[in-house]
Amino acid sequence: MVIDAVDFFYLSMPRINLDVDGSQDALLVRVRSNNDEGWGECEAAPLPSISAFFCPPSHGACLPVADAVIGARLAAPADIDAIYQATRVGSERLAQAIHVLSGIEIACWDLLGKRLQEPVWALLGQKTSYPKTAYASLLFGETPTLTLEKARHANTSGYRAAKFGWGPFGKDSGEDRDQLMAAREGLGPDALLLVDVGCIWRGPNAVEDATRRREMLVEANVHWLEEPFPHHDRVAYRNFANQCPEISVAGGESAVNEEDALALMHDANLRFLQIDAGCIGGLGPSRRLAIAANAADCQFVNHTFTSDLALVASLAPFADNGSEHLAEYPEELSELGTAIAGRSITPNTAGKIQIPDCPGIGVDVDTSNLLIYQRTVKITIDDEVLYQSPPICEDHA
Amino acid sequence: MVIDAVDFFYLSMPRINLDVDGSQDALLVRVRSNNDEGWGECEAAPLPSISAFFCPPSHGACLPVADAVIGARLAAPADIDAIYQATRVGSERLAQAIHVLSGIEIACWDLLGKRLQEPVWALLGQKTSYPKTAYASLLFGETPTLTLEKARHANTSGYRAAKFGWGPFGKDSGEDRDQLMAAREGLGPDALLLVDVGCIWRGPNAVEDATRRREMLVEANVHWLEEPFPHHDRVAYRNFANQCPEISVAGGESAVNEEDALALMHDANLRFLQIDAGCIGGLGPSRRLAIAANAADCQFVNHTFTSDLALVASLAPFADNGSEHLAEYPEELSELGTAIAGRSITPNTAGKIQIPDCPGIGVDVDTSNLLIYQRTVKITIDDEVLYQSPPICEDHA
Repeated sequence: MVIDAVDFFYLSMPRINLDVDGSQDALLVRVRSNNDEGWGECEAAPLPSISAFFCPPSHGACLPVADAVIGARLAAPADIDAIYQATRVGSERLAQAIHVLSGIEIACWDLLGKRLQEPVWALLGQKTSYPKTAYASLLFGETPTLTLEKARHANTSGYRAAKFGWGPFGKDSGEDRDQLMAAREGLGPDALLLVDVGCIWRGPNAVEDATRRREMLVEANVHWLEEPFPHHDRVAYRNFANQCPEISVAGGESAVNEEDALALMHDANLRFLQIDAGCIGGLGPSRRLAIAANAADCQFVNHTFTSDLALVASLAPFADNGSEHLAEYPEELSELGTAIAGRSITPNTAGKIQIPDCPGIGVDVDTSNLLIYQRTVKITIDDEVLYQSPPICEDHA
Repeated sequence: MVIDAVDFFYLSMPRINLDVDGSQDALLVRVRSNNDEGWGECEAAPLPSISAFFCPPSHGACLPVADAVIGARLAAPADIDAIYQATRVGSERLAQAIHVLSGIEIACWDLLGKRLQEPVWALLGQKTSYPKTAYASLLFGETPTLTLEKARHANTSGYRAAKFGWGPFGKDSGEDRDQLMAAREGLGPDALLLVDVGCIWRGPNAVEDATRRREMLVEANVHWLEEPFPHHDRVAYRNFANQCPEISVAGGESAVNEEDALALMHDANLRFLQIDAGCIGGLGPSRRLAIAANAADCQFVNHTFTSDLALVASLAPFADNGSEHLAEYPEELSELGTAIAGRSITPNTAGKIQIPDCPGIGVDVDTSNLLIYQRTVKITIDDEVLYQSPPICEDHA
């Protein structure tokens, strides 16, 4: 009942562009123990993450993540927390450790759920899994007219909430107003409108740039304003929260660990805490953050933009929150995201999504689809092979 | 006047033990621009750090650090801050980025100082470089008698302050008392006694374990208690600071970035903020933290335990603090630490150390010493060479 093997699969589209679109590559993790296996996905740079797992030790607090994982017991939920804690301590001075740990931790939950024939949300200590209100994640159109069309389409597709982000937004307050009004018009008066500005306001005028939009945000009835400032600019978040308490701020996807996310939530008085289980350390810390957010009257929301494996895993930590709670739903999966786990979950006619009722995470990975995307890595130190990518399909071994 | 090349040298002792002794390996960085070069040292796992510099891009906020560095302008201090900021943004989702950036940033200051014929502390905006009170960093002896001897030796060697840490301390409060009294007796009544417990108290009883030592810490006149809890256990730090305000707590060496360090300083009401320039992002963020610490009536202290290159660099950010301020001084350099930059700085008869009066950091690296320690790394992706270690001596190219 110990972890026998951890395999990494570095997948990538042939060409990576500079959009902030994390679905252009992926680091899939397979954990094996006896005859069971589980899958997880890191939302992290593949090569540094693989290196953090296999690197030579530097000292007692800068160990490769493998030291805390390979051979560790995996028979009960507490075993997964023990692996997480051992990694936090043994690899404390290895910054990339928590990113690679995230995918491993998720794969451990998947494996344990299959082994115990329980869904992961139940193993995380929850009695019920409620549906969630899916919001469609969309980019602003290049013009307000295009945004209007996108919003109308989201509305007629049955979404009760839609998020618009990036694109031209944030640069000119007159044009921003037109964009917001177009989005609101297309969605109709009742659907929730979320706005993601992708940290566009930076530097000494950041808070002023954001504050200049307060009236139009209120007028368009914007439900949340996401990442107005870079994650690390705590002072800007705090000042904006103090100056514009009527605007609900969402953030947290860039948090480097659970303490960082908690600190941002409190410092910025976040009303929505967006956590990416694929980089925060996995589902255990995400569950703790969901509980902490509830206690702070802040709504926990998943952050996910890659495959349905990542999506369904990301819903488990707040399964027992009520169905009015929002969940990010990548409406258009990328080619790579689709190849990893297909389309495993779709909104119902009421615009709700629900975790599949299966043991483990509830999503299968079809490795035969993935061969064409695999990038094979080989690392040697002093001419000895430290790491070599495994074959993704057994047939190709 | 742009950065032409960044070279990494992964050095290691033949065998790494599990002590928390960061001088067993090293990642040296050489930056070249026109005919100038500068050196820095990362306090970070070498292989993941090299990977973070050279990895393929994942998306627009998960770029290799090289993208922000190679070709960047390097003619004035603001250029170094621009490189730092560009890395924070472009590699925001790459956790290891800040660790590798740290050594590069230090090397940039060294290069710029040589280019402009200015010491780095002056380029950081300070008018004067004052000597600092060196504290000898020592391990507790296995027995109180051995600790007494070590403390006497530190005292007769002229140190006005000594830090004892790790070893058997923290496990049994009776034995801890004997250790503390032995250290105080050996140092005499006037020298400052610092205690580093290396995060030994963990879990639900952590604060209680620490609080149980409050009287003996006061009785031995302990000047600071360092890292009573793991860095990420903010709640323990906060509760202890509230319960035992008479104990001055030191911490911060494990901070993952400057915001994390600031948050710990405020949350834990730290009286001493220990910053390792080799992992916090370099000298620019360290200087900002020194200013923030002064404003919070908290003493900034360097954290360094590797080579004199790292030591002298780490003194630059708080050069203009007065000479009563403490500075960590690794009394016994390791074999590898000595090979990197020799012994470049020693305490005077008053127990003070001073930054050498030279352009740049003020320490030379002798690469001919380092060949026997170099570990050569080669990384291929899809059978194409992504990275290969450069020769450390030009003669061996």
